[in-house]
Amino acid sequence: MLDKFFNPKSVAIVGATIKEGKVGRVIVENFKKRFKGKIYPVNPKYEEVLGLKCYPSVKDIPEPIDLVIIVVPAPVVPQVLRDAGEKGVKAAIIISGGFRETGTEEGKRLEEEVKKISMEYGIRIIGPNCLGIYDNWSGVDTFFLPDEKMMRPKKGYISFISQSGAFASALLDWMAYRNIGVSRAISYGNKIDVDDIDLIEYLGEDEKTKLIIMYLEGLKPGRGRLFIDKARKVVEKKPIVIYKAGKTARGSMAAASHTAALAGNYQLYKAAIKQAGLIEASSFDEIMDLSKTLLTQPLMKGKRVYIVTDAGGVGVMLTDALASEGFELPRTPEDLRGELKKILPPHCIVENPIDLTGDADDERYITVLEKLLPRNDVDAVIVVALPQIPGIRGKLFEYLVEAKRKYNKPMLIIIIGSKEAEKFKAYLEDKGIPVFESPERAARALKALYTYSIIRGVAQK
Amino acid sequence: MLDKFFNPKSVAIVGATIKEGKVGRVIVENFKKRFKGKIYPVNPKYEEVLGLKCYPSVKDIPEPIDLVIIVVPAPVVPQVLRDAGEKGVKAAIIISGGFRETGTEEGKRLEEEVKKISMEYGIRIIGPNCLGIYDNWSGVDTFFLPDEKMMRPKKGYISFISQSGAFASALLDWMAYRNIGVSRAISYGNKIDVDDIDLIEYLGEDEKTKLIIMYLEGLKPGRGRLFIDKARKVVEKKPIVIYKAGKTARGSMAAASHTAALAGNYQLYKAAIKQAGLIEASSFDEIMDLSKTLLTQPLMKGKRVYIVTDAGGVGVMLTDALASEGFELPRTPEDLRGELKKILPPHCIVENPIDLTGDADDERYITVLEKLLPRNDVDAVIVVALPQIPGIRGKLFEYLVEAKRKYNKPMLIIIIGSKEAEKFKAYLEDKGIPVFESPERAARALKALYTYSIIRGVAQK
Repeated sequence: MLDKFFNPKSVAIVGATIKEGKVGRVIVENFKKRFKGKIYPVNPKYEEVLGLKCYPSVKDIPEPIDLVIIVVPAPVVPQVLRDAGEKGVKAAIIISGGFRETGTEEGKRLEEEVKKISMEYGIRIIGPNCLGIYDNWSGVDTFFLPDEKMMRPKKGYISFISQSGAFASALLDWMAYRNIGVSRAISYGNKIDVDDIDLIEYLGEDEKTKLIIMYLEGLKPGRGRLFIDKARKVVEKKPIVIYKAGKTARGSMAAASHTAALAGNYQLYKAAIKQAGLIEASSFDEIMDLSKTLLTQPLMKGKRVYIVTDAGGVGVMLTDALASEGFELPRTPEDLRGELKKILPPHCIVENPIDLTGDADDERYITVLEKLLPRNDVDAVIVVALPQIPGIRGKLFEYLVEAKRKYNKPMLIIIIGSKEAEKFKAYLEDKGIPVFESPERAARALKALYTYSIIRGVAQK
Repeated sequence: MLDKFFNPKSVAIVGATIKEGKVGRVIVENFKKRFKGKIYPVNPKYEEVLGLKCYPSVKDIPEPIDLVIIVVPAPVVPQVLRDAGEKGVKAAIIISGGFRETGTEEGKRLEEEVKKISMEYGIRIIGPNCLGIYDNWSGVDTFFLPDEKMMRPKKGYISFISQSGAFASALLDWMAYRNIGVSRAISYGNKIDVDDIDLIEYLGEDEKTKLIIMYLEGLKPGRGRLFIDKARKVVEKKPIVIYKAGKTARGSMAAASHTAALAGNYQLYKAAIKQAGLIEASSFDEIMDLSKTLLTQPLMKGKRVYIVTDAGGVGVMLTDALASEGFELPRTPEDLRGELKKILPPHCIVENPIDLTGDADDERYITVLEKLLPRNDVDAVIVVALPQIPGIRGKLFEYLVEAKRKYNKPMLIIIIGSKEAEKFKAYLEDKGIPVFESPERAARALKALYTYSIIRGVAQK
């Protein structure tokens, strides 16, 4: 149903213009850069926009149109939509503001009119008052920000749905800079038609989406039950990480001024989130920490975690953090203890956390991990490899990439440092191994993986 | 008393060597780079080490020695220390391991012998089994890691004391890369003599230290009361941020294997930390978030916080985070509301969070901040400036630097994004304005500032 939004063969951009910096120009520019279908600028003032033939109205376009993008002032939107309806268009993104969010009677009236027309002609609507869609695979890109202001991320498998347009664009920009792959991003604004639930359902079926992030202030009234039902089906296939805004009474009031969303009672949302099997991120950092871990790591069979470290102190920090999250850090069993004693110098600590100490080298890690990873009583391994010690030269990290393939067991890495640390981090994350500098954040990310493993029925509570 | 450790006029490096990669060579190299006093390598095997005249023993050095750095094997350490005592040396850093931490009888015996000799001759000891001191002002640098492995941070006013050597070196490396200024760092290992309390007392009087970070597993037995007394005096002048490791039973067990520290009952430590007026960081991120905020921001007079944002969604996230930390977000008072309505376009929201919306520009922020910052009923301002919107061009950030000088009021900034965001962040942090990408982390940092303001008697509870 929503496929025409994401994979249109042809788009009309109504309100296209040649004026520098204007939304109607930036969108045409962005489509020209990446969109592979046909682009039809619409504006009665021009014969041509940026080298493309321009039409006075959607109705004048000689070929069928899959998606109309509307950036004209609010009072003109109903007529544009009617034209699109006559033309047989079935999908429209209304970027324009000036509707209900203004709080004016005229704004409300216009929004109602738009709703009526869309129903009359059977046009699905995203918006109004939104940034619309950024689609990395098809090149649909109505985020009206030039590349200098918002970097476009590489193609990937994370999709996100955001009730805040600014947050969506900041996140795209942020992820691009950090080399995180994105599939599709949607800012839906006033959501007079297509809402979170429709989008979750669509992305749930989408083979280019392996994980969904949601920034939510409030659902449309009466949609709670359906949200839980639809989301439950999706999380059986892929994880949904949700950030709920408007958690406190004061935050809820702020949300009301922001998107007129009924942020509602957080306890109710919390219960719904749990029932639906969504993974809740409680901070900005967690949105990305949890996502990168859930996207790349296999599910956990249990909660027995081992730490291998070259820094005793960080081993202690991590032990605290994991224990606080409810993980078990088993005492090293007798047989493993014996094996480790055989391969490690006497000053190393074979107790979990296994401390290889400051004279460790890549090889020492590798021999230990070769003992740990194949074991059935090891559910996940966290490797702390502070690269300041001379023995860490990079071979360990190549090994980890191999080991991920070979053993398919959850592995997180902690690296703290400067240039070299950043280099190793980039290498590992590119290969699907999440790296953290904070033991506490690593522990919370692993906890999310464990929670999702329970939801998927792979781990026992 | 401890000044000879940090500002020696002359150092002897016992165990100096020309062998590539050896600790005794790296230390000589590092001293040659930055230390301004006299350097005397000691090793009976060489006449010269890296161009410096080498002596067979400390006793043979013809001039007085302020500090002896010892890197010879443990069994030789007592004799070296006796030589130093004969020579009249009053400070020694024993880098060498092989003492109590080995868990062997011989290790314990050696450690006792070293203690006895140090008392006999009145030599103060840091170590053994430590990285020692990195001092950015005097150039004392016994962290035996070459520059390629551990970047040296720029000169600054943060000092830290770490029970974990590896963590200390990782933190130095990390801070160097992020352009954070450091004064002095100390890894004290087995702390047979100089301990956390002595160091806090020293750094408390040190004019090059404006904030102290502590990584602590456990105090020496019986030192709790003194710790509270000494720390209380220091926090009247400068904040101490503490990270306590070994908080959980399992973490405490890990600490015991790590430094044989008695991590003890965390509830007792927590009470002591509170009583002493220390600021506790509960995660790696918080260590730096809290430190950069406490180091640069004036104290808060109350807990009334205003948000100015160009992104409604981030305003909501931040409102939640601040409310959760117990801050007040006052409704915009009538008089201010009137003033803001006059200067802002009608679609902007004058309620706190003040939402300048996506068409904001630098000037809009500046006019609003000029109304907010001078007010007595505003205790702190958080500015959210997502730089994806076209109007954010940098003038706002220059203004913020001016405003800090002019109004001397706590200000934190939230910026999320890519290259441009990083550029603005670097600019602001260099000028002493802390920047966050996570609303939750900003709220926690402000909370630390508020807590410290209460401790200092500036804010009421």
